[in-house]
Amino acid sequence: MTNQQTFSVAVVGATGAVGQQMLKTLEERNFPVGQLKLLSSKRSAGKTITFKGEPYTVEEATPEAFEGVQIALFSAGGSVSKKLVPEAIKRGAICVDNTSAFRMDPEVPLVVPEVNEEDVKSHNGVIANPNCSTIQMVVALEPIRQKYGLKKVIVSTYQAVSGAGLEAIEEMKTQTKEVLEGNEVNPEILPVGGDKKHYQIAFNAIPQIDLFQDNGFTFEEMKMINETKKIMHMPELEVAATCVRLPVETGHSESVYFETEQGGASVSELKGLLETAPGITVQDNPSEQLYPMAIHAVGKPDVFVGRLRRDLDRDNGYHMWVVSDNLLKGAAWNSVQIAESLVKLGLVK
Amino acid sequence: MTNQQTFSVAVVGATGAVGQQMLKTLEERNFPVGQLKLLSSKRSAGKTITFKGEPYTVEEATPEAFEGVQIALFSAGGSVSKKLVPEAIKRGAICVDNTSAFRMDPEVPLVVPEVNEEDVKSHNGVIANPNCSTIQMVVALEPIRQKYGLKKVIVSTYQAVSGAGLEAIEEMKTQTKEVLEGNEVNPEILPVGGDKKHYQIAFNAIPQIDLFQDNGFTFEEMKMINETKKIMHMPELEVAATCVRLPVETGHSESVYFETEQGGASVSELKGLLETAPGITVQDNPSEQLYPMAIHAVGKPDVFVGRLRRDLDRDNGYHMWVVSDNLLKGAAWNSVQIAESLVKLGLVK
Repeated sequence: MTNQQTFSVAVVGATGAVGQQMLKTLEERNFPVGQLKLLSSKRSAGKTITFKGEPYTVEEATPEAFEGVQIALFSAGGSVSKKLVPEAIKRGAICVDNTSAFRMDPEVPLVVPEVNEEDVKSHNGVIANPNCSTIQMVVALEPIRQKYGLKKVIVSTYQAVSGAGLEAIEEMKTQTKEVLEGNEVNPEILPVGGDKKHYQIAFNAIPQIDLFQDNGFTFEEMKMINETKKIMHMPELEVAATCVRLPVETGHSESVYFETEQGGASVSELKGLLETAPGITVQDNPSEQLYPMAIHAVGKPDVFVGRLRRDLDRDNGYHMWVVSDNLLKGAAWNSVQIAESLVKLGLVK
Repeated sequence: MTNQQTFSVAVVGATGAVGQQMLKTLEERNFPVGQLKLLSSKRSAGKTITFKGEPYTVEEATPEAFEGVQIALFSAGGSVSKKLVPEAIKRGAICVDNTSAFRMDPEVPLVVPEVNEEDVKSHNGVIANPNCSTIQMVVALEPIRQKYGLKKVIVSTYQAVSGAGLEAIEEMKTQTKEVLEGNEVNPEILPVGGDKKHYQIAFNAIPQIDLFQDNGFTFEEMKMINETKKIMHMPELEVAATCVRLPVETGHSESVYFETEQGGASVSELKGLLETAPGITVQDNPSEQLYPMAIHAVGKPDVFVGRLRRDLDRDNGYHMWVVSDNLLKGAAWNSVQIAESLVKLGLVK
C-alpha cells in the first residue's frame, strides 16, 4: 500500500503529435497521475485513447473541463492556450504550456529544468515550455556556460517535419512516394500551414520555419534567439539562428558555433563537462565515426552532443552538433519534467 | 563557313555523375570541341555516349590516350588525377582537375572564374577546380568582399547525395523506398564510400562528408576552409565549416554567417551588389516566401542567394542562404568555365 500523493492532470491537445508523446511520457515516468482528462478540439472529441491500460474518452476542451484539474499540459496551438490557460488558472490549475503564447511574457517563467529549474517557483499559474529547437541547444550550452561563460552563439538548424504536426509527416511521406514514382507533387502544408505558399519537402531543404518577421528572420529563428536569452537570464548574449526544415520525420539536428567568455578550454575539458551534465549523452569519437544523428535520437529523452571541436581561428570559439527528439526533450518530455519539478518543489496545491 | 578555332578535348571520368554533366555543359555552351575523347576506368571502357548527336566509344584512360589532347577535364577521383594529370601535361594538354589532388599545391591555381579568373595565367599544365561547397560560397561572398572586405565566415552546409556519385543517389532512393515500406535498410556507401561505417541517409542528416582529420574537422570542412582562403588570396580570413549530408538528390544549400571588414552596409546595398554580380541570381523576398531551394536550383548554372539579413548584434555581421547545383557550378560548369577562360585568354596552344 502506498500513500503517494497523486494529481489531477489534463492533457490539452491529446490527439496531436506532442499530446501522444506526453501521455506516453507520463506513463513511462510513472508520473503520479490521479484523475486524467484528455482534452482536444471539438473535431477530435469522442475518440478513445488508452493510458496505462485504461480507455479514456477525449473531451472537448472547454473552460468548464478544467474544474478540479491541478496540472494542465497544453499542446494544442497558441490560440487555444491564449483562450484556455486563463480559464484553467481561474479554476486552480497550474498550466505547462508548450506553445509560443506566453513564452516571452515577463510574468511567465520559461523553463528547461537542466538550466533554470528554480524559475518554476515564480509561476503565476503558467510555466512556458520553450520551443523545441531552443531546448536542446540550451541543454548542451549550459554546462559550458556555467564554467566558462558564454558570449556568442550562431546556430543553423536541421529540423524534422514532426515539429509541424502529424499532417506534415503524412505530407512528407506521401510526397516522397510521389517523387520516387516520378509523379507531380501538390504541397499543401509545409513549410508553414498558415502561410500563403507551400513547397515540396521531399528531397529538399526549406529555409523557412514559421512566418517571416520584419527583420528578415523567421519567427522560429526569433524564438531561438529570444528564448535562449530568457532561459539563461542573459539579455546581453549574442545569438543568431537560421532555421531549416528537412525531409526527416523526427529528430532535430543543430550545427552550433559558440564563443565562451573565458577562452583556452580544451575540447576534452568541455567534453568532460558535458559527460557529467544532466540530460546529455555525448556521442563523439571521430575515429569510430561516432556522432549524433536524428534516426538514432528518436524515442530517447536525452540531448545528444558530438562533433565538438575548437575553432581554428579563435581560442574561445567551438563548434558542436546537437541532436534530440523534438517531440520528447523538445516538447513532451520537457513539459513533464516541468510538472515533475512543480511536484518536487511542492508547488502543486 | 566559320573559321573558329576548335580544340581537342578529353573528358576523364566521362561515365560519372560529374562527367555526364561536363559533356552536357560542353554541348550547351557550344564549346569549340574539335576532337573529343571520352575516357574512363577499364570497367566502363567500351560504353557508348552520345555528344552532339554523334556516338563516342568510351576508352580506357591510359597515359597514351592523351596524345594530341589540348584540354583535359578530369573528374574521376583523386588517385586517377595524381597518376594521369602529369602524363597528360607531358603530352601537351592543359588539365582542369575536379578532384582534391592538386587544389592546395602552391604551384597550381585554384580557380572560380567569377572570383579569380586571372589566376589561370599562372598554370603549369593544371588548374584545379575547387570543391563544390566552396565554389558556391565564394561566388556569393566575392561581390561583398570586393566592396566591404571580409573578416570571418561561418558556414553550415546542407549537401546533396549526388556529390558522392551516382551510386549514392541509387542508395538514397532504394533506402527511402525500404524505409517507407517499413523494411530494414543496409547502408553500404554513405556517408563516405571508403570509410569503415555506413549510415542510413533516408530521412536522416549525417554530419560527416569525407574522412575525419586530426583536428576534429572532416576533410570536406577543411577543403572549404583552405580553398576559400586560397581562391580569395586571403590566408588571414577566418573560416569555419560544418558539412552535413542530407537526403536531397542534387543541390547544395548553405547557411552562411559572415562579417565584413567595414560595417554598416544595409541589406539592400548588399543585395544590389549581388544582383549585378556575375553568376548570381538573387531570390530574396520574405513577404512572398521567395528564397533559394535545392529543388529549384537543379539544372541551372547560377548560384542562388536569399534570406540575406543583418545580424542582430554586430553591425558588420550578416546571414544568407546560398544554393547551387553541385554538379554544375559546383563541378562541371565551373570546369568548363575554366576551359573557356583558358581559350579566351589565349592560353591553349
